[in-house]
Amino acid sequence: MKKATIFHEVLIVQEGEGQAVPDELVTEEPLEIRLATEAGIRPVAVTMRTPGQDEELALGFLYGEGVIREWADVTSMTRPRDRAGQEESNILLAELRSGLDPDLKSLDRHFFTSSACGVCGKAGIEALLLRKAPAVSAGPEVTPDVLYELPAALLGDQSVFKSTGGLHAAGLFTGAGEQIAVREDVGRHNAVDKLIGWAMGDGRLPLDDAIVMVSGRASYEILQKCLMADVPIVCAVSAPSSLAVSLARQFGVTLIGFLRDRRLNVYSGRERIGLAD
Amino acid sequence: MKKATIFHEVLIVQEGEGQAVPDELVTEEPLEIRLATEAGIRPVAVTMRTPGQDEELALGFLYGEGVIREWADVTSMTRPRDRAGQEESNILLAELRSGLDPDLKSLDRHFFTSSACGVCGKAGIEALLLRKAPAVSAGPEVTPDVLYELPAALLGDQSVFKSTGGLHAAGLFTGAGEQIAVREDVGRHNAVDKLIGWAMGDGRLPLDDAIVMVSGRASYEILQKCLMADVPIVCAVSAPSSLAVSLARQFGVTLIGFLRDRRLNVYSGRERIGLAD
Repeated sequence: MKKATIFHEVLIVQEGEGQAVPDELVTEEPLEIRLATEAGIRPVAVTMRTPGQDEELALGFLYGEGVIREWADVTSMTRPRDRAGQEESNILLAELRSGLDPDLKSLDRHFFTSSACGVCGKAGIEALLLRKAPAVSAGPEVTPDVLYELPAALLGDQSVFKSTGGLHAAGLFTGAGEQIAVREDVGRHNAVDKLIGWAMGDGRLPLDDAIVMVSGRASYEILQKCLMADVPIVCAVSAPSSLAVSLARQFGVTLIGFLRDRRLNVYSGRERIGLAD
Repeated sequence: MKKATIFHEVLIVQEGEGQAVPDELVTEEPLEIRLATEAGIRPVAVTMRTPGQDEELALGFLYGEGVIREWADVTSMTRPRDRAGQEESNILLAELRSGLDPDLKSLDRHFFTSSACGVCGKAGIEALLLRKAPAVSAGPEVTPDVLYELPAALLGDQSVFKSTGGLHAAGLFTGAGEQIAVREDVGRHNAVDKLIGWAMGDGRLPLDDAIVMVSGRASYEILQKCLMADVPIVCAVSAPSSLAVSLARQFGVTLIGFLRDRRLNVYSGRERIGLAD
């Protein structure tokens, strides 16, 4: 069983000086929910989740989608085994009671898709490897002082957030900290898509000398989108997930979290951060 | 063109007294992205987004998924018309240049699904109507003093959040404010699924005398999940989206946002809030 948190080393940078300490990250892993009915086995959803209470998650999901009405509708919940005989920790198979014949076609219409990995985190990362070079470009070196100014710049341009308090933002900055564009959306990943879509229309791709800063947390999908656009430095106001850190390390992206109050944590790619030493 | 924000009347409750004021909400609407290739037209994603820069969103999404490499890969972006000849504001059709033949099968594997509405908000709400009674149960009447205590109770039980700062939480409370269960997850909707899945396993469904409180914002999918479980009162620490408010009003759910610092906003179902007068 995977754990809900995982320890990574992080470099805390405050007053221009860095200190390496262990940091606890929330685990983000995909869970695929499969249904076994009399018609056979089929996947119905893959969601990025924190491991733990997976059975509850699957039950609640199936109930919310109207597939089951009560606990007795599910006769078993098991994890299939891979070829080596190991349990697949990111797959859960729910077997429905005989006679229950949910309308899975209508279920399809009640899902909305969001871009991210594939069937499991590993497959997602491997699929990404096929699509792009093994690492992002060298990119700029930036100073902590430049990064410390980004949250205020991002918030300054978040017009809808200021009026509603309900939006995520993503900002594009030069290595010197100059703001190029800011986009907002109710979905964090949509704000990044809008930013990169704008950059594409403006002839700015790849973004190999830029910084992208997001208003909330850095999840796997934020990293994946920035990686595809060759962004060397990704910053977030809040925490990154475990999978975001893994992806950043694998592809050489500088990932910064908790960038606020003139303080930041470097999770990956510290060679791009110019320290006083 | 839909607007990025919308005004609703809200009841602000402070010191036990209510005051009705206009409030600006962020608009949340689904966008369906369709691809036109030589092989035909097919939908590739539906995402809940804030209207505005839809073309940028679609471009960035398609780039992030490796479907297009540059702007010239898209020859047109249009909105189809409905039977009455009106433009579909929540559908965007991207036509790819001749000769570009993306592997859309592999694209399917790179999406992960998350539960929410169908092809458009209206269809989603209509589909929900078919699945359940037109309104939730009467439920309890609660006082502002009971509600004011919920955020601290939720945070007090958020063990992983405290160690990582990276998690969403959903808590189940009685109408008297007693905590029944709390679940955490990197995904806000997963925390609610886990909570409802737990309640199902514990024989507590429907939750028609309970309060659900979430740590972040109240989006459409949070409301949809609570509605399916007959939760009469839904509270959020931050802002609700426009679609969450619409859904709550349509089904008679009491929806409370910005519940913090002994203050709250009632967006729907104020009859369940006992005020001093």
